[in-house]
Amino acid sequence: MGILQLLVPKDRKFFPLFQQATENLIKASKVLNEMVTTTVPEKRKELIREIEHLEHTGDNITHMIFNELSRNFITPFDREDIHALASAIDDVLDFIHGSSKRIELYRMDTLPDAVVNLAEIILKGSIELNVAVVNLKNMKDVTAIKEACVKINSLENEADDVFNRSIAALFETEKDAIQIIKIKELLSALETATDKCEDAANTIQSILIKYA
Amino acid sequence: MGILQLLVPKDRKFFPLFQQATENLIKASKVLNEMVTTTVPEKRKELIREIEHLEHTGDNITHMIFNELSRNFITPFDREDIHALASAIDDVLDFIHGSSKRIELYRMDTLPDAVVNLAEIILKGSIELNVAVVNLKNMKDVTAIKEACVKINSLENEADDVFNRSIAALFETEKDAIQIIKIKELLSALETATDKCEDAANTIQSILIKYA
Amino acid sequence: MGILQLLVPKDRKFFPLFQQATENLIKASKVLNEMVTTTVPEKRKELIREIEHLEHTGDNITHMIFNELSRNFITPFDREDIHALASAIDDVLDFIHGSSKRIELYRMDTLPDAVVNLAEIILKGSIELNVAVVNLKNMKDVTAIKEACVKINSLENEADDVFNRSIAALFETEKDAIQIIKIKELLSALETATDKCEDAANTIQSILIKYA
Repeated sequence: MGILQLLVPKDRKFFPLFQQATENLIKASKVLNEMVTTTVPEKRKELIREIEHLEHTGDNITHMIFNELSRNFITPFDREDIHALASAIDDVLDFIHGSSKRIELYRMDTLPDAVVNLAEIILKGSIELNVAVVNLKNMKDVTAIKEACVKINSLENEADDVFNRSIAALFETEKDAIQIIKIKELLSALETATDKCEDAANTIQSILIKYA
Repeated sequence: MGILQLLVPKDRKFFPLFQQATENLIKASKVLNEMVTTTVPEKRKELIREIEHLEHTGDNITHMIFNELSRNFITPFDREDIHALASAIDDVLDFIHGSSKRIELYRMDTLPDAVVNLAEIILKGSIELNVAVVNLKNMKDVTAIKEACVKINSLENEADDVFNRSIAALFETEKDAIQIIKIKELLSALETATDKCEDAANTIQSILIKYA
Repeated sequence: MGILQLLVPKDRKFFPLFQQATENLIKASKVLNEMVTTTVPEKRKELIREIEHLEHTGDNITHMIFNELSRNFITPFDREDIHALASAIDDVLDFIHGSSKRIELYRMDTLPDAVVNLAEIILKGSIELNVAVVNLKNMKDVTAIKEACVKINSLENEADDVFNRSIAALFETEKDAIQIIKIKELLSALETATDKCEDAANTIQSILIKYA
């Protein structure tokens, strides 16, 4: 047993909640991918409702983490870091939800390929976030945590690239300015979800920095 | 007298300044509400000048807080938290100011209802922020602080909803893309003011987390 | 020798890297200024490649700082502050790079004056950031650090002003909505570079607050 594991107090409250939060995030990301690829309007509507539902579940998990914070004197990491990490995970889900709401509100029927690409990147990021959080538990595999964070960072770069190229393509092909505004709003919400995923990874990295 | 009150050093410098900052914010929010509801162009211009003036007052208060920070060795909370809270309150005012400047610069005459709705939400948030800051003083009513922060969080959700619905309505009714861009810019600045209010509430919550 | 200097451990690793990071940032800002003023398409393309190259150099410096963080037990400042400062400097460069990429991707030939104005402000900010970082080294001139941070703050206000006025002018003169969207995107990326410069200054100010 390494020294890091000795330093981290055994915790049975926060880690299961963080794991729930990232598992719920993976679920929502999967539904997002289904939703942006289906061509059946009724199915899409249904999947948007499901994302809404998963967003509420995420809110509840976040509140449970905050409640544990106010109830427990001893925490596995600095209280502020637990607060920041829970908030960042919640933010990713908020932007998944915001993206799906935009598709409905703006009555967008056909979605550009970049929407599907970004949804895939969000799912990959959520899976890496889950890997990082699970391994944070007893610091048993610091390398795995670091690698997951590095992957999330490069996924954010990839999302940035997809966003920039698709906006450029949009300017080339789409001549209806209002359509451009709508699509730009949607792509921007999806891209921000990957930014928030990176924020979560940065919080995890700064936890590692304190404890390593 | 509770243990929390014993732990918080008696402070006569920071809390009066924080109180001034949030009272000034309430004033600016009230002028914003007047400004977006008046139909008299001259009156609107005058109220925009008043917001500009209050923004300068806010800047001065923020600088006084920063000066006290560099002069005082003992502070009622972590220095970084005082810095973060003062900055967040200042940011809310900056976006109130930015919104009013946009109305003038973009020569917007008729404003959509959502502008009025968002201005009302900003005022409500400012009042709650003042409640939280006043009670932070001697931690005499932690429940009141928590409740104010919860309200600010749900006000931000409400603002998000107003923003999303009004942009959707805009796409339905407005066919002039340039008009859509202008209104979107204004609504987005107002909505960001409520985000900054939430940032301030989050800072207050993380202060509570450290001291509770 | 003042007490501050005694408190700051002699450091031979982080400060040279921070100095490299801000010097690289100055280089990129200079190339940005050249790039937005040249009228020769081939020259512009070449300068955009150079910014890309300097962005990679910046990434490497940032990673070296993060590596030192995980290798060194004793750091001249709080580990989180070193992490935050390195990230903020990296962010400025990211938005310089993002701006130049937009010019290429959106095939923008003639650039409005505001683009040149903002590029100049970014260069001035980078120079001040370098001054602050160099003086942070042994805290030998706290006044110089504070002054640099104050200047960066007022440069950000200036950028905000340039941005707002140019968007207003754009609405007056440009009748092509798609053109407005493109220019707004570019100006907004440039303006965000000055925001990130302010974030870096705020991090430096909060380091000062802790050690002063």
